[in-house]
Amino acid sequence: MAEKATRLGVRLRPHVKTHKCLEAARLQVRGHFGGITVSTLAEAQAFAAGGFGDITYAYTIAPSRVADAVDLARRIDRLSLVLDDADVLAAIEAAAATKGLCLGVFLKVDCGAHRSGVAPDTEDAVALARAIARSSHVELGGLLTHAGQAYRSCNAEEARAAASAERDVLCSLAQRLRAEGVELPELSLGSTPTLCAADDLSGITEVRPGNYAFFDAYQVAIESCALEDVAFSVLATVVGRYPARRTLVLDAGALALSKDAGPTHVDPACGYGLVLSSDGSRRHTSLRVVGLTQEHAELRAAEDADWSAFPVGARLRIVPNHSCLAAALFDRYHVLRRDEVLAEWRPVKGW
Amino acid sequence: MAEKATRLGVRLRPHVKTHKCLEAARLQVRGHFGGITVSTLAEAQAFAAGGFGDITYAYTIAPSRVADAVDLARRIDRLSLVLDDADVLAAIEAAAATKGLCLGVFLKVDCGAHRSGVAPDTEDAVALARAIARSSHVELGGLLTHAGQAYRSCNAEEARAAASAERDVLCSLAQRLRAEGVELPELSLGSTPTLCAADDLSGITEVRPGNYAFFDAYQVAIESCALEDVAFSVLATVVGRYPARRTLVLDAGALALSKDAGPTHVDPACGYGLVLSSDGSRRHTSLRVVGLTQEHAELRAAEDADWSAFPVGARLRIVPNHSCLAAALFDRYHVLRRDEVLAEWRPVKGW
Repeated sequence: MAEKATRLGVRLRPHVKTHKCLEAARLQVRGHFGGITVSTLAEAQAFAAGGFGDITYAYTIAPSRVADAVDLARRIDRLSLVLDDADVLAAIEAAAATKGLCLGVFLKVDCGAHRSGVAPDTEDAVALARAIARSSHVELGGLLTHAGQAYRSCNAEEARAAASAERDVLCSLAQRLRAEGVELPELSLGSTPTLCAADDLSGITEVRPGNYAFFDAYQVAIESCALEDVAFSVLATVVGRYPARRTLVLDAGALALSKDAGPTHVDPACGYGLVLSSDGSRRHTSLRVVGLTQEHAELRAAEDADWSAFPVGARLRIVPNHSCLAAALFDRYHVLRRDEVLAEWRPVKGW
Repeated sequence: MAEKATRLGVRLRPHVKTHKCLEAARLQVRGHFGGITVSTLAEAQAFAAGGFGDITYAYTIAPSRVADAVDLARRIDRLSLVLDDADVLAAIEAAAATKGLCLGVFLKVDCGAHRSGVAPDTEDAVALARAIARSSHVELGGLLTHAGQAYRSCNAEEARAAASAERDVLCSLAQRLRAEGVELPELSLGSTPTLCAADDLSGITEVRPGNYAFFDAYQVAIESCALEDVAFSVLATVVGRYPARRTLVLDAGALALSKDAGPTHVDPACGYGLVLSSDGSRRHTSLRVVGLTQEHAELRAAEDADWSAFPVGARLRIVPNHSCLAAALFDRYHVLRRDEVLAEWRPVKGW
């Protein structure tokens, strides 16, 4: 991703929400300017304490958290906030004025995911951008979007179309605003599927992918990556073995893999992750994770499965559907080179 | 549940997996003999350290964890293990022999959930029970089952039928084994849906419900309880407000509510939980949680929703689909009486 951002002529401001640990973020920013993106103020605080000085909190901030954000903004070079609501702008302006600060703020734009952001073709979008630009207590950092809809892609070609749309929505709104004299230093976009697929980001200045640091079964299914690119997996143990009903039970349940339903639009029978050998070198296509309860994974074996390979106590490695959710269930990562544990990394928790 | 167990003439050995905290477990055992059930060895160790001396680890133990279990068994009055595999019996016997211990072991029986347990009508089930009973290093504590299939019930009547089946499977296998001279001190069963519905547990000695300590939207849907019986909820804040597309966004995403799909067999449109007023006193039936991403809940408002009640910054309380999974995402509980925080309780994490 670092190479690709350079090739596409954009700054890489990686999102750290997937792994939430300093060591992985330091790898992500190598060769780039050092800025990162976070999804919670707890991440912002922990990464600031860990030496990161340029942080975008890419989340429409709750008014009740503005005071925390202002406190943090005074301690680092740059904390940028994100908003799409005039009441929140007023709350940020009031807090910044009290502290004598000028805070960087991005306008969040909805490029088609229809989760957060102003609708780009509305007068409200233009009015809010103008209001931010005019304010003396905040500085308009630019426009920011996230093509969450790219997760509905079935393949790289569809993700590439989503990437073009994500870019075009941002550039088109920027053109209207700049024509009115609104200055927009940055146009920031990003999702792992669109950035894996993108081949032209003309007009865009910054990208914020996150999941690519680990990847997962979902990204494999929609062709963001190959299975061997996935860095995160959960090592599990066979605790039940029932050949008569072609079932294996592993000790990695919903509290280890998360219940993300995965890429069912690509494969309705995808189950809850991909099953690998314990060293990760081989996929067991004969085993599907058909169910998860709190502490159990239920695997269904193909008719020709080799049961001698799976006694109770055997280890299997599961690549979860959604690494962002599965990773958050653990208090540490074991960093492996083959079977050797090189390090333990600790993620940030909470909000 | 404590009253009901007494009325049905069974011992209550509550499961602590839902909340995983000492304070809640102490409430659960009040008026009963003090034994508890756990789902992980981390829970067993933490609750032993917190003064619980009679613990059943109701999970088919992995051979690699037998040594940990034996260590713990030496420090408390009674640690009972659960198995359904001859290899695991051999591993437990070997470890117990080395330490000069005699460990209590339950035979896990599949009463229809088809997750773990021996099939009750097979010769294998009888042979494994005999092998445990004959062993000089383990003591057969009895039979243990869990009617996980009760979660597929649509109402209390169906759950009551599941409860009868759960009881009958256990009693019927016990009858066969006792006829052969196998002693079975305990017949232990339990799930929250079956125990909420059960009206006759003749022959059963012990029950192990867990979820009832919190309940959740799923249990409401299948009529285990009423909404006002639910003790666990997540307080969230409106961080996005989009009347044009009838959408509210809250800061409680998959990392706060879990992605459990909920009781879709009762209500395919159930979404990801029930929306209450911030003080929990009123349900907002005009709001449905239609989507969850890592840090966002997307709510769809009915056409007649009163948007003035939901500005950015407003608080709403969500009753998640599955409290066991949602609770595990937090490092503490705020114990409330109305809006007053009476205490903070800390759950056990890990395995």
